[in-house]
Amino acid sequence: VKAITVALAPCAARSYEIHIGRDLLDTVAAQLAGRRWAARWFVVTDSNVAPLHLERVLARVDAEAVVLPAGEKHKTIDTAVALASSLLARGADRTSGILAVGGGVVGDVAGFVASIFMRGIPCVQLPTTLLAQVDSSVGGKTGVDVPAAKNILGTFHQPCAVFSDLAFLATLPAREWTNGFAEIVKYGAIADPGLLPIMAARSDDLRAGDQQLLGEVIGRSCRIKQQIVERDEREGGLRRILNFGHTVGHAVEAESGFSVSHGEAVSMGMVCAAALSARLGHLGAAHREELVDVLRRVGLPVRIPASLAVSGILERLGKDKKKAGTTIHFVLLKAPGQPFVAGDVPGELVREVIEDARS
Amino acid sequence: VKAITVALAPCAARSYEIHIGRDLLDTVAAQLAGRRWAARWFVVTDSNVAPLHLERVLARVDAEAVVLPAGEKHKTIDTAVALASSLLARGADRTSGILAVGGGVVGDVAGFVASIFMRGIPCVQLPTTLLAQVDSSVGGKTGVDVPAAKNILGTFHQPCAVFSDLAFLATLPAREWTNGFAEIVKYGAIADPGLLPIMAARSDDLRAGDQQLLGEVIGRSCRIKQQIVERDEREGGLRRILNFGHTVGHAVEAESGFSVSHGEAVSMGMVCAAALSARLGHLGAAHREELVDVLRRVGLPVRIPASLAVSGILERLGKDKKKAGTTIHFVLLKAPGQPFVAGDVPGELVREVIEDARS
Repeated sequence: VKAITVALAPCAARSYEIHIGRDLLDTVAAQLAGRRWAARWFVVTDSNVAPLHLERVLARVDAEAVVLPAGEKHKTIDTAVALASSLLARGADRTSGILAVGGGVVGDVAGFVASIFMRGIPCVQLPTTLLAQVDSSVGGKTGVDVPAAKNILGTFHQPCAVFSDLAFLATLPAREWTNGFAEIVKYGAIADPGLLPIMAARSDDLRAGDQQLLGEVIGRSCRIKQQIVERDEREGGLRRILNFGHTVGHAVEAESGFSVSHGEAVSMGMVCAAALSARLGHLGAAHREELVDVLRRVGLPVRIPASLAVSGILERLGKDKKKAGTTIHFVLLKAPGQPFVAGDVPGELVREVIEDARS
Repeated sequence: VKAITVALAPCAARSYEIHIGRDLLDTVAAQLAGRRWAARWFVVTDSNVAPLHLERVLARVDAEAVVLPAGEKHKTIDTAVALASSLLARGADRTSGILAVGGGVVGDVAGFVASIFMRGIPCVQLPTTLLAQVDSSVGGKTGVDVPAAKNILGTFHQPCAVFSDLAFLATLPAREWTNGFAEIVKYGAIADPGLLPIMAARSDDLRAGDQQLLGEVIGRSCRIKQQIVERDEREGGLRRILNFGHTVGHAVEAESGFSVSHGEAVSMGMVCAAALSARLGHLGAAHREELVDVLRRVGLPVRIPASLAVSGILERLGKDKKKAGTTIHFVLLKAPGQPFVAGDVPGELVREVIEDARS
């Protein structure tokens, strides 16, 4: 037997910038021209965002546009293949790049296609929702659904840059604000407790478009995600704490057939994770109540709808893709800002906590 | 405007071994158990290979099997999605791994799915054809077709290990031998001219299963690919020389509707690339004739079928995914072992050379 060793060098250090501010399109255009990440750009957006913002983007940025059907139900491998085929039909090649202009679905689908189109092309993210600006546009996770399950196909494909333009938020529907608030409260719970009183007191100012305050909470949120992703790009350990509230959250979201939004489901999931933390003796009652109070004040639901079956939620927990082997990991809290991953939460306790949150 | 820099560390150096020898399944089993790349393994193979080898593999390796439909026409995104869904239905998760047992199609589809299933799981390659053992199993390129074009979706996803078991070659059909010979002659042409007289004289001994000789030519071929991939993992430059004969080859293969096999098409492509090299004054007539003679002696076609339209081949050259911007790159030769990439080959000359090869 011969053995030949293929010794591949480490890849180069990679870094990219998250720009947060108002009216960034000139900055985007200048960077696309100056940095030469790609020779030709394709804006990928969706049918909700296109009528609101596409004309303004194309007036500044030299690119062609591809418009995807809007909505979580289109975050599928079929949409990704249709996008790739559309890029191909327009002559995209290995030197082309994608500018993702939209919320989490656009960012995930466009980022996924960028990672697999001709074995990978550059992607720049222009998140247009608060949720995408504080969470999904940063960190390089991409993913699409197959008929049998959510987010099963995906990659880690870091963007060349993220531009969070506050001007996009002016057209945000009410429910999209609460979706973003859920993730900001999550960052408060796991890493920056100072965000909790700000969110409790000032969510109306955020909705009203207070630029200084928006820049503050988006910046603090991105800073936390940046620090975690830098230390654990591929979710080997630390990055799991970003899943606080998402274990039960994903199960609730799926069990509702996605009539419960991601942020609403994560809010319910955080209520359950806090209750588990308290029942297991890790988190004090006052801290648990503070978290539930903040969620309520920003307008998020803190009860699981009685229409959802506990058995259905529990069954979906077993299918959560974050399970490793047979253990379901829960992110729990010792206090605001002190999360930890528990692999040994009794199933019976999980059932009780979900039943309590539903009653 | 705030700017937050996300500074990602270089990924770790990665290396993997290519094992070449007879009856390697015990080695495979020992490495899967000892190296702990994954907690649970899924053999991915196809309907041609399964009846010949699957029982023997599963007798040694603790794994479940998924059998794909065989054939180039099934190297599609639909097959990849069906494979991912099948893995999911069997309970595969982020701790599972794929053992690809088959030729180039199985390796490409299984490697692609491994790279995108739950954002990436490990893959071990057990190539069963000569072509896969000398070429496609090494280097981490994966890819599938969409209806509009070949190999448009793919990734670079290096295997954990490659095991080229010569025992698999005992069941190889005649046409699969010539497919592999084409790539070995290519390595001779671009990097190891000593392979050319060996192939000219001893292809019958290879077909007859001469173990020492098979180990020799497969080892020398893998060594060349290893050295090139180590220096240019993602085809930024040097790796392009591996495409010698593939520019016209891919166009001929596609224009024939894949009735011309990959190796046959690459053989025709090498004849054209050698003719271009000679017409442009880079390659001497004796070297050009030697290469054509070797291809003929191993049983490969050196003429493009008259049934294929020159205009169709030329049009497909323009769609080749390796084009950067508007320039088509040709890999040409100065002498055996001295390839170079030319970006300035006149289209009219390409047409003449293809017409000559077809007459």
